[in-house]
Amino acid sequence: MKKVIVLFSGGLDSTTCLALAASRGYECYALSFSYGQKHSIELEAAKKIAASFKAQHLIMDLPISQYQHSALTDQNIDIPHHTGSTQIPVTYVPARNTIFLAFALGWAETLNAKDIFIGVSHIDYSGYPDCRPEFIQAFQRMANLATKMGVEEGNITIHAPLINLSKAETIKMGLELGIDYRITISCYQADNQGKACGYCDSCTLRKQGFLIAGVVDPTSYQS
Amino acid sequence: MKKVIVLFSGGLDSTTCLALAASRGYECYALSFSYGQKHSIELEAAKKIAASFKAQHLIMDLPISQYQHSALTDQNIDIPHHTGSTQIPVTYVPARNTIFLAFALGWAETLNAKDIFIGVSHIDYSGYPDCRPEFIQAFQRMANLATKMGVEEGNITIHAPLINLSKAETIKMGLELGIDYRITISCYQADNQGKACGYCDSCTLRKQGFLIAGVVDPTSYQS
Repeated sequence: MKKVIVLFSGGLDSTTCLALAASRGYECYALSFSYGQKHSIELEAAKKIAASFKAQHLIMDLPISQYQHSALTDQNIDIPHHTGSTQIPVTYVPARNTIFLAFALGWAETLNAKDIFIGVSHIDYSGYPDCRPEFIQAFQRMANLATKMGVEEGNITIHAPLINLSKAETIKMGLELGIDYRITISCYQADNQGKACGYCDSCTLRKQGFLIAGVVDPTSYQS
Repeated sequence: MKKVIVLFSGGLDSTTCLALAASRGYECYALSFSYGQKHSIELEAAKKIAASFKAQHLIMDLPISQYQHSALTDQNIDIPHHTGSTQIPVTYVPARNTIFLAFALGWAETLNAKDIFIGVSHIDYSGYPDCRPEFIQAFQRMANLATKMGVEEGNITIHAPLINLSKAETIKMGLELGIDYRITISCYQADNQGKACGYCDSCTLRKQGFLIAGVVDPTSYQS
């Protein structure tokens, strides 16, 4: 069985990625990060979902908050309501996906896994630069030059299977794969019970996705 | 004053980088990592050296040992003697410079610093793939696509000023910059007093560097 690292937050997109990787017959290694995110309850969801897929699950503690400020991690910056603006929002965490993929690459090389899945999309997204196809391609190219595995064997692949999918398309694919989205958490400020705020960027995109997909939204909201 | 992030281990190369950045008038931010390295005494040297350059100094704890095995970090793998082989040695840490540069990039963006210095060389080196110019160029390209700062302003630059220098040339440059190499630690298994083993890859390359430079080696050895 080929091994794969799946970057895995326990949200809608990364759960779909994990289900997709499992359906393709990979032995799955799910990688989550504790980086001071306000919505750390997502990690509890991640644990349960990873177990349901019989994936190995590693949660790494990253001290990003030693230097960075973002609405996702800083208690002094409120999570904004979704605006639909094309500006990069205050929830942006500097170099987040670069850091996440760097660790995925390190773990992949340790396991001799050549495939990494990441659930980014540039269709219904928050405008983060590290969710775009040109970033993924540039990271893949770099990864093959950075590592012993890349230099000696080549073919390290960063898979972004949702990159061209709308949220509704992702949801439809996930439902076909049998995902129960009720247990996934996408909200940037989910409460201790995992209930979603319903108005942040992430909630809004998810809500619209279920609406457009014509599927009942199973998300548990705070009010 | 322009800000710069200097990846900084407290060894010969990164100290030379820090001195070079300071001599060019940058406001210096030195970034070190505690990642389970056997030679963690290097961090004590790093603190003293960073203070001597009046650089801000951040030591981040990285849980790389949660998944990786390398002679640099695993007590069950001995640090080998220098062999001069062109094979990538067991001291290789998967994706290490990718991970280090990813955090440097995150900190840089937080500070609005466009310049990152890293003291890699592909002349007198251990054969690590992430010390080669093609890796540095690929990382720089990726960094400009990954970040808000890169997308909006461009020109994020990964400087590797030692990349084409032999160890002897680096030493000569550092001496002209006024560095006292006595306080730097390069050894992969320096003891608690910071004394070097004298035979690992890093010691051997350093020793040869002083010899070829025609300079008395100020390193304190264990025997």
